[in-house]
Amino acid sequence: MTVRFGLLGAGRIGKVHAKAVTGDANAKLVAVADAFPAAAQAIAEQYGCEVRSIDAICASADIDAVVICTPTDTHADLIEQFVKAGKAVFCEKPIDLSLTRVKQCLEVVRAHKGTLMVGFNRRFDPHFRAVRAEIDTGSIGAVEMVVITSRDPGAPPVEYIARSGGIFRDMTIHDLDMARFLLGEEVTEVVATASVLVDPAIGTAGDFDSVQVMLKTASGRQAMISNSRRATYGYDQRIEVHGAKGAVSAENQRPVSIEVATAAGYTRPPLHDFFMTRYTEAYAAEISGFIAALSSKTPATPSGEDGLIALALAEACLKSVAEGRVVKMTEIL
Amino acid sequence: MTVRFGLLGAGRIGKVHAKAVTGDANAKLVAVADAFPAAAQAIAEQYGCEVRSIDAICASADIDAVVICTPTDTHADLIEQFVKAGKAVFCEKPIDLSLTRVKQCLEVVRAHKGTLMVGFNRRFDPHFRAVRAEIDTGSIGAVEMVVITSRDPGAPPVEYIARSGGIFRDMTIHDLDMARFLLGEEVTEVVATASVLVDPAIGTAGDFDSVQVMLKTASGRQAMISNSRRATYGYDQRIEVHGAKGAVSAENQRPVSIEVATAAGYTRPPLHDFFMTRYTEAYAAEISGFIAALSSKTPATPSGEDGLIALALAEACLKSVAEGRVVKMTEIL
Amino acid sequence: MTVRFGLLGAGRIGKVHAKAVTGDANAKLVAVADAFPAAAQAIAEQYGCEVRSIDAICASADIDAVVICTPTDTHADLIEQFVKAGKAVFCEKPIDLSLTRVKQCLEVVRAHKGTLMVGFNRRFDPHFRAVRAEIDTGSIGAVEMVVITSRDPGAPPVEYIARSGGIFRDMTIHDLDMARFLLGEEVTEVVATASVLVDPAIGTAGDFDSVQVMLKTASGRQAMISNSRRATYGYDQRIEVHGAKGAVSAENQRPVSIEVATAAGYTRPPLHDFFMTRYTEAYAAEISGFIAALSSKTPATPSGEDGLIALALAEACLKSVAEGRVVKMTEIL
Amino acid sequence: MTVRFGLLGAGRIGKVHAKAVTGDANAKLVAVADAFPAAAQAIAEQYGCEVRSIDAICASADIDAVVICTPTDTHADLIEQFVKAGKAVFCEKPIDLSLTRVKQCLEVVRAHKGTLMVGFNRRFDPHFRAVRAEIDTGSIGAVEMVVITSRDPGAPPVEYIARSGGIFRDMTIHDLDMARFLLGEEVTEVVATASVLVDPAIGTAGDFDSVQVMLKTASGRQAMISNSRRATYGYDQRIEVHGAKGAVSAENQRPVSIEVATAAGYTRPPLHDFFMTRYTEAYAAEISGFIAALSSKTPATPSGEDGLIALALAEACLKSVAEGRVVKMTEIL
Repeated sequence: MTVRFGLLGAGRIGKVHAKAVTGDANAKLVAVADAFPAAAQAIAEQYGCEVRSIDAICASADIDAVVICTPTDTHADLIEQFVKAGKAVFCEKPIDLSLTRVKQCLEVVRAHKGTLMVGFNRRFDPHFRAVRAEIDTGSIGAVEMVVITSRDPGAPPVEYIARSGGIFRDMTIHDLDMARFLLGEEVTEVVATASVLVDPAIGTAGDFDSVQVMLKTASGRQAMISNSRRATYGYDQRIEVHGAKGAVSAENQRPVSIEVATAAGYTRPPLHDFFMTRYTEAYAAEISGFIAALSSKTPATPSGEDGLIALALAEACLKSVAEGRVVKMTEIL
Repeated sequence: MTVRFGLLGAGRIGKVHAKAVTGDANAKLVAVADAFPAAAQAIAEQYGCEVRSIDAICASADIDAVVICTPTDTHADLIEQFVKAGKAVFCEKPIDLSLTRVKQCLEVVRAHKGTLMVGFNRRFDPHFRAVRAEIDTGSIGAVEMVVITSRDPGAPPVEYIARSGGIFRDMTIHDLDMARFLLGEEVTEVVATASVLVDPAIGTAGDFDSVQVMLKTASGRQAMISNSRRATYGYDQRIEVHGAKGAVSAENQRPVSIEVATAAGYTRPPLHDFFMTRYTEAYAAEISGFIAALSSKTPATPSGEDGLIALALAEACLKSVAEGRVVKMTEIL
Repeated sequence: MTVRFGLLGAGRIGKVHAKAVTGDANAKLVAVADAFPAAAQAIAEQYGCEVRSIDAICASADIDAVVICTPTDTHADLIEQFVKAGKAVFCEKPIDLSLTRVKQCLEVVRAHKGTLMVGFNRRFDPHFRAVRAEIDTGSIGAVEMVVITSRDPGAPPVEYIARSGGIFRDMTIHDLDMARFLLGEEVTEVVATASVLVDPAIGTAGDFDSVQVMLKTASGRQAMISNSRRATYGYDQRIEVHGAKGAVSAENQRPVSIEVATAAGYTRPPLHDFFMTRYTEAYAAEISGFIAALSSKTPATPSGEDGLIALALAEACLKSVAEGRVVKMTEIL
Repeated sequence: MTVRFGLLGAGRIGKVHAKAVTGDANAKLVAVADAFPAAAQAIAEQYGCEVRSIDAICASADIDAVVICTPTDTHADLIEQFVKAGKAVFCEKPIDLSLTRVKQCLEVVRAHKGTLMVGFNRRFDPHFRAVRAEIDTGSIGAVEMVVITSRDPGAPPVEYIARSGGIFRDMTIHDLDMARFLLGEEVTEVVATASVLVDPAIGTAGDFDSVQVMLKTASGRQAMISNSRRATYGYDQRIEVHGAKGAVSAENQRPVSIEVATAAGYTRPPLHDFFMTRYTEAYAAEISGFIAALSSKTPATPSGEDGLIALALAEACLKSVAEGRVVKMTEIL
């Protein structure tokens, strides 16, 4: 079965998903929509699909599924619109910055027995997937402690932070989802520390640029997250899982893996400097995962519920920083 | 300028090149030919091009260049045919197993001022390219010693070896070309050792499966090559260059880079187990290199001459093993 | 100047220090005392020194300094006794498990202008020292985040835990001191999470075996500590420091550094399985550091004050776990 | 049983062995001799032993064994003198630079049923020993190819080279012995390449500074050696063994194992810069091995015969370079 796609949004991430859809033998990109006609037109020409309006795509009988890559504040409305029209939906995270709005949206999805997958692309990184697969083999025993290091090469513009909901909602949220993916149990307690060390303007905007988080599950499993908006050496993305019988970790990735030895020592090049080059394979694999779920009529994960919980964990981090205490997830959800 | 391509041969490597051509924004795959119509048809359907005969492609006004992926014993004839027709030619190595035939063929290319690039794909591996680029920066000083380790996951069928010209001509030849690529000077002396350690049938067929080679240039620069037809741990492909001021090396590549720690130690997964997964990026980059050379009207390298010299080095290895002595390249070419 | 030593305690750690003292060209081991005469006698014979009682050593004119390796509950009393007698004192950590008692003891040291160095041996590990030295060069810029992973190969007997004051006071305390050593600023806020995942008997005894700690300084610098009483792969001891311009880390150490490659992957042996083999060089270097400080009449560090603060941080961890909140150090000291 | 030692030669390497002897609980250093009385006196004072003449040591009833660290041209005479006197002998390599003289000397040792161990210290390096032990477990199957990289941080003075017998006899000889240690079969064929790339004065003196060697055994096992008198990045000492079922390797060692990450990449410090710091543990372990052999009355290895064969292999290298051909060991021994 070939899944026929509409693409909503032809910006940076829209292009990535267009390539992923057209590169999958079980999918076909039928139409693309964007507020900027030129952007939509460029994708249409490159991949031989049509430009249509969002409403036209929603009404198209020759489209089974959509990928939503429009601005965040349109996500929840579009999910509802397309689910009601019977289309399967892949939506970039987050569904919305408001927990209440996300819950409403998921209610609509449930009511229409809709299919919704949320774009936590890192779950599809081949290295991180291999970590999870290793846990599943039982080789490291029961998971006890997860340690996640996640640092951006540089801070985004302060304007972006205002729109993004801040570091916990736009950056840490990926690590919170990864912690859930690896812990194998729901998080029940959250505590966070936050500082402004990179850019005072971020503090002025009411956000932080350097944060640490500790999570705990009901049975006592633990996770730690270390985030910074700055890393001169590149996009630092590592995970470690320590268990009763052993540990498994995924190291950083770099574009080239040479080593130069001189009197100054042994030097390997910096890491990838951009999330789109670091996670190239992950972006392709998540769309393939969505297509495979639709083809096999199995649930698509990460689900809307996964998106909700990750956002709730980010909210708990904010509350913990504000109140200087451990926050129970029952206070949030 | 868009380079319009014909593909000769729709087998395993033909498919790889079809993907590379269609994935390059400056190229277009116009037609494909294969002795097996079904193979050609499959590529034609996947990429929206036509099936034509080899002669029809040669006569096509809408084709600028061809990629030759047919059996080895057709390479030299096809190169001559297409060069005479004014088409640019990319040909999989080797041009021929006979040095004399290769020389004749290159004579024809020269006479027609033809463009010929030979498929030593490893020169386009991003890690090996980075090694060469590092040398070019001067950071390691003048090159003194090159060490190349190259081991296949497993031996090919004995039938293949009969056709391929043996380990020096089908396997070591890649390392001989890489040594030239890195030494920065022509090799003047060759000495080789050879054993049958992996499969006695290979010995019965008159070939070897475990070989070592030492090379020397006029100024005394040296290179060593270690080859085996067997490596349980995967496709072992490493290079090291030692110079007056330092050294640079490229490590092995693996599909996933996790590490599992247990009471038994710290374990990383095996390497790639196949040359086509190990050199995925290299195959795409070499075709892009060919397209870029055509577009910019600069010489395409590695050239037919590079193919000739690599084959001559392989001949020198064979002679050295047979006679138990250092062979000078002036004896061969 | 040769520093003449008395050794108090001839047990496991006493032997380590005896070797360190006798191996330093600027020191001489004059006498050893132990409640078990045979233990003292063994050291006396091996190194050609005398057996004396503790009081005799205290009264000896031919002894300048002592190394205290007796049980923890004797430390504070012995420090006071020897400082009053004008001897320089190196004491294994902790000074005492009670903050109040430690403060009293340090008051006595101050009143007698005594010299007291506390045995946080990890500060003298060559790899960790190199991390600190790298920070001091300025290459990584201002320190922003410290991440310490510290896991024991196995849990101690529950009886030991009762005496030791629990995981925060006997194990985490080393990492708390290391965090101070690396942060370059005093910690002002502490929050900890704690679980029993390894051995339920540890929980029954009122302690934890898996803990996480987050620290913060006045300017917002952060540190994270991950501790477990179990690590099948050996004694896991890593530190990372992330700064404004870069990062520096110290990897784990193993007795042999070979790698075995088979069809199952690439395997390196487990880590050291014991703190005394892991920190062999650190134990020798800390005694040399003490001797060098005495010889040059410069302050010996880590000082009694460092011991006090590390213990106070451990107390803050306990309070944080009990109350589920961030604890300010002004609440403790 | 305590083995009572005399030390012949109190220079750089003599000091290393003095420390090793005194650090072994089963040995006692009784006396030291040196042509420079001050050198002998310094060791005597540090370790509480006597200064005696060589002849006095030979006649001493309280001495069971000697360590010969005198200049090379005295080795064979001293071995004969002490073996005749019934002393066990550990002699630094080489026994002599002349194969004929070595054979005579070993004849004397045999005639007197003497004990002679030769100082190929690298066999006792814990990492290289672990490589050998891994081979012995069978995990990598039958050995097929050994690859040894051995580069000195810098070239010795040309005067030294004149005395040492040149690169093959003073430097490569260690790698030739290591190849034998790892191949598990005697080498039957040798071929070498040699250049002067580092220092023209070395060439003027008739020697080489950059050499490559290939070895082969009767069953076809192979070894490669790469040597240079220059390595800006430190003392480069690596071995790899490839077998039918897998491979095992020992990486380089460095004094500190930190890594610094900046915008310029990830840098680890250079390697050890001196053979005595690189092989500290090996020197201690070889003397302990000698003592253990004497104590247990088992053969001490590497033996005089091992010393002879390594020298013969070096001779074969020289002959191969001179004649541009593969040399059979039956031509040499």
